[in-house]
Amino acid sequence: MEREKALQLVKEQLTEHRYQHTIGVMDTAILLAKRFGADIKKAETAAIFHDYAKFRPKEEMKEIITTQGFPLNLLEYNSELWHAPAGAYLVEKEVGITDREVLDAIRYHTSGRVGMTLLEKVIYLADYMEPGRHFPGVEEVREIAQDNLQRALIKSVQNTMIFLLKKNQKVYPDTFYTYNDLVNKLED
Amino acid sequence: MEREKALQLVKEQLTEHRYQHTIGVMDTAILLAKRFGADIKKAETAAIFHDYAKFRPKEEMKEIITTQGFPLNLLEYNSELWHAPAGAYLVEKEVGITDREVLDAIRYHTSGRVGMTLLEKVIYLADYMEPGRHFPGVEEVREIAQDNLQRALIKSVQNTMIFLLKKNQKVYPDTFYTYNDLVNKLED
Repeated sequence: MEREKALQLVKEQLTEHRYQHTIGVMDTAILLAKRFGADIKKAETAAIFHDYAKFRPKEEMKEIITTQGFPLNLLEYNSELWHAPAGAYLVEKEVGITDREVLDAIRYHTSGRVGMTLLEKVIYLADYMEPGRHFPGVEEVREIAQDNLQRALIKSVQNTMIFLLKKNQKVYPDTFYTYNDLVNKLED
Repeated sequence: MEREKALQLVKEQLTEHRYQHTIGVMDTAILLAKRFGADIKKAETAAIFHDYAKFRPKEEMKEIITTQGFPLNLLEYNSELWHAPAGAYLVEKEVGITDREVLDAIRYHTSGRVGMTLLEKVIYLADYMEPGRHFPGVEEVREIAQDNLQRALIKSVQNTMIFLLKKNQKVYPDTFYTYNDLVNKLED
């Protein structure tokens, strides 16, 4: 899909603030894809649509998770996680994107998963560190991402988990297992 | 078992430094047991024997885990975890303690587990905060433990996880699930 057409479709789904974030994720994802050898066009598409479902009603996201074969334990965790699988579903159904790699990059952009693909890593990290993001630790992740995708990703997952831990919030098991999996692969 | 007899048995298994730690855990466990209504004698016994297997050869601990029905995934994680289940086994076999609550408090004193008993919480926390412990965050846990066992325990598990995360070390899944379980129960 043409970039302008894709951006137009997603703009209708988002607030202006979230649309600007999406532009940042797109630019960053393309940059990371070039740097680390991911498919640039797929990175662009996944980035543009990663937050497609962000402003859908919780009930709709819950319905999608329940009826479309997503893990039901998502419903026991923060609803911020829901727009990722719901987005993967809606982007296929409403936008007509069928590329499994792109849809999985959308699906796992918030939780991560064990055995993330290169494209999934690029989208996760771009979402974390796009220029509009300002929180403790993000600058360090940007620096590491200059030359090491794996370490930048670990650092971003660590920061996310530590943020949740310090707030007494539950951590989604897939995020925890993503961390252990990445550390395992560092040791290899 | 008489306290002096128990201390004598465990002293033979430990370095002088670790024996002093054990005394600290015993004193703290008794104090916490009184404060939060756990069985004082069981707390004393579990505390005295909690590190019984600490200095056994790794091969022996591995053998016990492998042959005595403990979760084999322990072997994929830090060997610091192994002395807890190995200790529960050896304290029963060599010392003759058969009280299941005491043995479980020894078994889970390093990893924690979902659905920890009051005695298990007391031993976990006593091990974390006994007076010989000096690391960032321990004083805050001691303060919280003045009146809230559950919050002190969460804070100690959080601190432990954050410590491992910052060192790029894997976290044992039972520890992670212990955290989520404790947070769940806070929300109730």
